[in-house]
Amino acid sequence: MRTALSGNRLCIGLLSGTSADAIDAALVRIRGAGPEAQLHLLAYRARPFPPLVRRELFQLFEQAPPALERLCTLHVILGELFAEAAMTLCRAAGCSLDEVFVIGSHGQTVWHQPAPSSLLTLAARGTLQIGDPAVIAERTGVPVVADFRAADMAAGGQGAPLTPYLDWVVLRHPTRHRAIQNIGGIGNVTYLPASAPREDVFAFDTGPGNMVIDGVVQLLTTGELDCDRNGALAAQGRVDRVLLERLLADPFLDQPPPKTTGRERYGLPFARQLLNEFGLPAGILRDPRVPATLRQRACDLVATVTAFTAHAIAESYRRWLPPIDEVVVSGGGARNPSLMRVLRDLLAPVPVVPVEALGLDSAAKEAMLFALLAHDACFGLPTNVPSATGARRAVTLGSLTPPNGWKERANREEEQP
Amino acid sequence: MRTALSGNRLCIGLLSGTSADAIDAALVRIRGAGPEAQLHLLAYRARPFPPLVRRELFQLFEQAPPALERLCTLHVILGELFAEAAMTLCRAAGCSLDEVFVIGSHGQTVWHQPAPSSLLTLAARGTLQIGDPAVIAERTGVPVVADFRAADMAAGGQGAPLTPYLDWVVLRHPTRHRAIQNIGGIGNVTYLPASAPREDVFAFDTGPGNMVIDGVVQLLTTGELDCDRNGALAAQGRVDRVLLERLLADPFLDQPPPKTTGRERYGLPFARQLLNEFGLPAGILRDPRVPATLRQRACDLVATVTAFTAHAIAESYRRWLPPIDEVVVSGGGARNPSLMRVLRDLLAPVPVVPVEALGLDSAAKEAMLFALLAHDACFGLPTNVPSATGARRAVTLGSLTPPNGWKERANREEEQP
Repeated sequence: MRTALSGNRLCIGLLSGTSADAIDAALVRIRGAGPEAQLHLLAYRARPFPPLVRRELFQLFEQAPPALERLCTLHVILGELFAEAAMTLCRAAGCSLDEVFVIGSHGQTVWHQPAPSSLLTLAARGTLQIGDPAVIAERTGVPVVADFRAADMAAGGQGAPLTPYLDWVVLRHPTRHRAIQNIGGIGNVTYLPASAPREDVFAFDTGPGNMVIDGVVQLLTTGELDCDRNGALAAQGRVDRVLLERLLADPFLDQPPPKTTGRERYGLPFARQLLNEFGLPAGILRDPRVPATLRQRACDLVATVTAFTAHAIAESYRRWLPPIDEVVVSGGGARNPSLMRVLRDLLAPVPVVPVEALGLDSAAKEAMLFALLAHDACFGLPTNVPSATGARRAVTLGSLTPPNGWKERANREEEQP
Repeated sequence: MRTALSGNRLCIGLLSGTSADAIDAALVRIRGAGPEAQLHLLAYRARPFPPLVRRELFQLFEQAPPALERLCTLHVILGELFAEAAMTLCRAAGCSLDEVFVIGSHGQTVWHQPAPSSLLTLAARGTLQIGDPAVIAERTGVPVVADFRAADMAAGGQGAPLTPYLDWVVLRHPTRHRAIQNIGGIGNVTYLPASAPREDVFAFDTGPGNMVIDGVVQLLTTGELDCDRNGALAAQGRVDRVLLERLLADPFLDQPPPKTTGRERYGLPFARQLLNEFGLPAGILRDPRVPATLRQRACDLVATVTAFTAHAIAESYRRWLPPIDEVVVSGGGARNPSLMRVLRDLLAPVPVVPVEALGLDSAAKEAMLFALLAHDACFGLPTNVPSATGARRAVTLGSLTPPNGWKERANREEEQP
């Protein structure tokens, strides 16, 4: 595939995230390539996994036997589902698969050990994504780039985060220093100095994103609510200053970047301990006979972890970032007004704007990333951000799986001016 | 990579087989591509796995916990070992990695389910090879093609056998109909009619190769011998006609091709049952005080399973192949004179020649295959043999993992005439 960098190409990005609930698919038009690429989102869909597949995936995450047989089976089944997601997306967008230049499929991560595993006598860092690209290529007839994390790890990186590349390409500003803050389960920031070359970009996890808020709300409602929708509970509570101070003594916040964190630190056990300390039994917000003082205390806890989340972000900037001119937020947390209110207060006078204000769809952002990574891989361009992953250098990410007869197709494309 | 088909390129093929004892590495010069390719072997090495790695691999085959962590760790460690094997081979051959066009790495199969798994509520056919190509590409700086079985399976095939492609390219004869018989653990044949187009090639497993002989010898010597070296034990024995007849009633021999078999049918339990039937205790050939009659009976058993192996091949030809002009043998079985003697008798007057007589190194053959498959994948050529694998059509096998800066390299190569 040696086509001019100046082209204008349709690319598809596919992934399913750590929560393994759905396949995100984005159809993107890409003009140019590398740092100068321009992306235009044409269509986006999230397609939930069938419950049975999701159940088997969680069995796999637990390494339940028979693990290899399950892995092998799900690798192919996810390949089929990812292919279907790409085809459905194309149909919905009124575009033919023939017009699609490449599909970038992140697949589903089933194992990721950025540090050498200590359980085995042999130690190695590694990562494992499933969703067979050969199945996607066979069903769609489109070249597929997959396995985006392996090359970065082989070059000494952690294989994550990959998003800073999209942030850098799409969101760097000629004159403003920007922080691109994603608030998913975990919070992470990409720092983009004005007109930055790749070497000046850096990124790290800021601490909890929605994970602690979600965990507390799920426990207080025994799962009736899965998050504090519109920040409604936090809005009814008052921040407990003592607890907040204690939470902010979190050693993760003291750790200098690069750093990553996850469910192992801020998962349900973390939330459960907070309920205990606050003397709140699980399910209390579901009980209609609960006294008003206890209900209030539950809302106070939600307000406090919401404040903790915002403080963790603001503190990260204060400690580890040079001065910034603008903060751009994406992810589910951007839709929590209580969280955004505290964050704006803490960061004032620096403006906090949703990524949508810059023309990027927050939900589609990660799928767009894999469309871009696949596109740029076809031109042999480096697409990791070493300062974010810790890799020794910038490398091309991904392996290319050709569909049947792709050379004839590539030649045909080259013949057309 | 769009280089003229008329080139003359150095390619490396890497694999480790089902016995997981060593990495086979071959350095091959390839002229032309596809059906007209000419291969010249420059160097070949088998590099044993470190015992610890081998132990962990067998734990993995057993799906012992923690399976995903072990898989992920071994995926990377095998990547490192495969990279080392390629580099050592190059050094030994006095060639620089810069001169190598592509590496084809089959990796190590850890799971293969050509039929849908029945243990899980979800069913899919699939295959899984490890040995991270991103690690090989990073360490060597050479593009790596890997995952050779996935595309054939996605196209409805069994992902095996792949060898008929090499047989067809290298061993088809303008005027002679040939059977290319490999005698590894299992026996398999590729039928190559004179000047055959790909559609007329077919291949199937003929039954046991060395597996039953090896198993019987290992049990009789409790592992002191791992095979009947030079056919010495069989040469001292007489064939037991009654047992031979019973063995030849094997339902596998009645099954029409395409067909495959393996350890699940002809593994140690099969050999153990034969010892029982013959009233031979395990380890008897190791016991210096054993009576001569019993020792003779042990040699008779080895002679009988040797005859069975040869008959299984000859019977397969009689039942399932059109008339042939020549049989070409490769694999460990070709180095067993007792086996070859029976086979020649059974096939006479058709000549049985070792593959070496045709200028091909038997030990290096499979590694050469993956060099060829990788080479041809770079030109988008189809490299499966659908009549052998059962795929719906011929497809390009393998996914391409680029090394750092490979596009610059490809451009440089193109500039040189």
